[in-house]
Amino acid sequence: MSKQLTYEEAEALVVSEDPEHPANLISELCREFYKLGWVTGTGGGISIRQGEHVYLAPSGVQKERIKPEHIFVLPFAQSSVPKPGSKRDFLRIPSKKGLSESQCTPLFWNAFTMRSAGACIHTHSQHAVMLTLLHPRDAQSFKISHQEMIKGVRIGGVGKTLSFFNTLEIPIIDNTAVEEDLTESMAAAMEKYPDAPAILVRRHGVYVWGNTWEQAKTQSECLDYLFEIAVKMLLAKLPLVGDN
Amino acid sequence: MSKQLTYEEAEALVVSEDPEHPANLISELCREFYKLGWVTGTGGGISIRQGEHVYLAPSGVQKERIKPEHIFVLPFAQSSVPKPGSKRDFLRIPSKKGLSESQCTPLFWNAFTMRSAGACIHTHSQHAVMLTLLHPRDAQSFKISHQEMIKGVRIGGVGKTLSFFNTLEIPIIDNTAVEEDLTESMAAAMEKYPDAPAILVRRHGVYVWGNTWEQAKTQSECLDYLFEIAVKMLLAKLPLVGDN
Amino acid sequence: MSKQLTYEEAEALVVSEDPEHPANLISELCREFYKLGWVTGTGGGISIRQGEHVYLAPSGVQKERIKPEHIFVLPFAQSSVPKPGSKRDFLRIPSKKGLSESQCTPLFWNAFTMRSAGACIHTHSQHAVMLTLLHPRDAQSFKISHQEMIKGVRIGGVGKTLSFFNTLEIPIIDNTAVEEDLTESMAAAMEKYPDAPAILVRRHGVYVWGNTWEQAKTQSECLDYLFEIAVKMLLAKLPLVGDN
Amino acid sequence: MSKQLTYEEAEALVVSEDPEHPANLISELCREFYKLGWVTGTGGGISIRQGEHVYLAPSGVQKERIKPEHIFVLPFAQSSVPKPGSKRDFLRIPSKKGLSESQCTPLFWNAFTMRSAGACIHTHSQHAVMLTLLHPRDAQSFKISHQEMIKGVRIGGVGKTLSFFNTLEIPIIDNTAVEEDLTESMAAAMEKYPDAPAILVRRHGVYVWGNTWEQAKTQSECLDYLFEIAVKMLLAKLPLVGDN
Repeated sequence: MSKQLTYEEAEALVVSEDPEHPANLISELCREFYKLGWVTGTGGGISIRQGEHVYLAPSGVQKERIKPEHIFVLPFAQSSVPKPGSKRDFLRIPSKKGLSESQCTPLFWNAFTMRSAGACIHTHSQHAVMLTLLHPRDAQSFKISHQEMIKGVRIGGVGKTLSFFNTLEIPIIDNTAVEEDLTESMAAAMEKYPDAPAILVRRHGVYVWGNTWEQAKTQSECLDYLFEIAVKMLLAKLPLVGDN
Repeated sequence: MSKQLTYEEAEALVVSEDPEHPANLISELCREFYKLGWVTGTGGGISIRQGEHVYLAPSGVQKERIKPEHIFVLPFAQSSVPKPGSKRDFLRIPSKKGLSESQCTPLFWNAFTMRSAGACIHTHSQHAVMLTLLHPRDAQSFKISHQEMIKGVRIGGVGKTLSFFNTLEIPIIDNTAVEEDLTESMAAAMEKYPDAPAILVRRHGVYVWGNTWEQAKTQSECLDYLFEIAVKMLLAKLPLVGDN
Repeated sequence: MSKQLTYEEAEALVVSEDPEHPANLISELCREFYKLGWVTGTGGGISIRQGEHVYLAPSGVQKERIKPEHIFVLPFAQSSVPKPGSKRDFLRIPSKKGLSESQCTPLFWNAFTMRSAGACIHTHSQHAVMLTLLHPRDAQSFKISHQEMIKGVRIGGVGKTLSFFNTLEIPIIDNTAVEEDLTESMAAAMEKYPDAPAILVRRHGVYVWGNTWEQAKTQSECLDYLFEIAVKMLLAKLPLVGDN
Repeated sequence: MSKQLTYEEAEALVVSEDPEHPANLISELCREFYKLGWVTGTGGGISIRQGEHVYLAPSGVQKERIKPEHIFVLPFAQSSVPKPGSKRDFLRIPSKKGLSESQCTPLFWNAFTMRSAGACIHTHSQHAVMLTLLHPRDAQSFKISHQEMIKGVRIGGVGKTLSFFNTLEIPIIDNTAVEEDLTESMAAAMEKYPDAPAILVRRHGVYVWGNTWEQAKTQSECLDYLFEIAVKMLLAKLPLVGDN
């Protein structure tokens, strides 16, 4: 398990003039995601892993108004999958001016540990939520094929890109009252669907990851596009799979 | 009853270099709300209460072009619920270059006096209006459950946050010809529905409040998201309550 | 008939450091209207009349990229309603670097001469066009009532504001191959419907005017909002008039 | 065949302080196209031809974050239509920091060689894709008439503008697994439909060209508007051709 960061060490890690520094990127990207309707009302966000550290936003704040100094830095420990209840102890996060780290933290960790992802994005996009609502209650996954945008998505989120003729499949899991309670069902879905680049959460949103923040972002855009067009297709009674 | 402010006192209160000063915030937030489609065509806005003073925008102006010097400052008197007809006398507002205070003033006051709110937002969002139009003419309220976004809303707008399994209920009241005539029916609905975080006005829009401007804004975003997805669900014949 | 402006006089009239100068305003407002989807693909725009001069944009250019020096200044002659064929002679416009004045010029003139308007806005908003498409082929006008946004619209575009209980009525005229051929049918509709604040053009867009650019803009926003919600209501089989 | 550019020659060609320089324009326009939803997730873009050189964006990067120094410069050879397989040899592109030129390159070339276009835009607009999905599987083209926006489109993309009474026709071709495999079917469609100002690609997007970047952009806007309203009309069971 990684050494705990002191408050001063953590604070020093979020100050940089480099616009590509994770603390600066997270602030900037959250402003962009707000414009896309992905993180309204404090929900959603992005976490970036860089070497031994994970950067993420605080919980319950306006994501489009985050400043770099609000960003949390956590030590990354490959072996330590957070479990509900053990989270705070596991993360050993330095206290920070009344803020606490995003409730999505253990879910981001799934992407980092199970897929070696470098970044993970969580959105409350209405396209994702409507898509889950338009699926039967017992549907286990969403499938779509024959869309150019599928080519922007990687196998398992981190492998080779899909082809136009591949069928994309993304598992849908049930929502829970507390966000960190999703940790185990998300992990189970990731194990059952090793090629899936994302996890849809019914009546909630989606988790998308990638090797880097760029890949996580472009895959989130491709998937959100596909969710949106799939909703339109379902409402127009068009089949999602096949080329009819 | 609070002492009347002189014109000079009121003007001095809206000049500040602090971006978090209410006069600066209202101007900035109205620009943001314009982009969201909440305050087009002079309608809607936000009022912020800070200690003994209430800050609000003028009536009938382009909300996205308000400057801090246009903001009205009124004395806040807890005991003085404005009544139609007595408003101007009650508020004792200093005259201001041909501008008059927002017609929503007594409605904002409902939130300040009945919920001890620190801020109140009024939008003409089409999602709110379409939602009221898709409800039967005699519906008294809008209800929705099993949506992650419900967790961003507080009981009564100022209490504890709701859970994913709670049903959110928001009363719908009829519109009136003159905005301040809504004062009493809004107050009546707030009394009848003490847990409601907002009041929908049929064919008009919504009033949302919170302990602070941040909470009023994030709750407005969560509610507008829920209004939008509820409209989509109703058009797709999906039930708003339950998890089917 | 007003004296013709020389090229130098016209050029001098569009240079000002005042952001409220018509040449600066038209450039800025066209950028805003572009974001609203009103003036994509070179169509649409705004003309402002100030005393003896009328300011308007060139024809066939990207409206969001207009600079003040591109703005045309024409002499305003109350008595001279332009007629198709006589337009160029009537306007006696100084030549300008290969640009010609907006093809909407004689239509803007209708608003200036018949309503004494201070500004006129033309949009290709899809809400306006869809609304005309959803009306029967022989419908002469669009009517709507019981919408808060109606209160932002003035009788005849320049008189008293409407009430929540008034029915708003806007004539719909047929489109023509050449924009200036609309001049006479627009004028005829304005005579037949003296209370109408705008003219809808089937499969084309809308003309909206006001006493000032502020009133023309806020009325355009209120009307575009009403067109959008009317389209939604028609698709949802809700009646546009009445409060059922 | 044009002389191959050295790496240094190509790099020098993308540095300019002129905002109208192709390398600066492509970066700026891609940011604008991103806001319009045309180039999300690395797809789409614009290529500009200026005399003997063609400027275009790299493949697989975030189009809204391109900087001028990322732009590729290729020699333009009128006689050399790229063929699948021969592309890289034909283009003789200098290597560039791990980037490769856009996969759309041979498709852009079709517009440059077959229509003498000065610019070509490729979008993944959902309006274009939904339009192809709402057409029968064996439809060869999309047709629409009686829309003001048709007047913003030129015959063959580079000739005279269409009239309100003309019927616009745009061929629809099938998508392929690899983008450059579209080269021949796009060329065949351009030969069969010499008046078409664009090529729709089923389940993928659209290619639009013009004499200049301004005309390519305004025509893309007019066409995207027409695709959007056509989708709305089809969903509302309104005929696309005729004036009923």
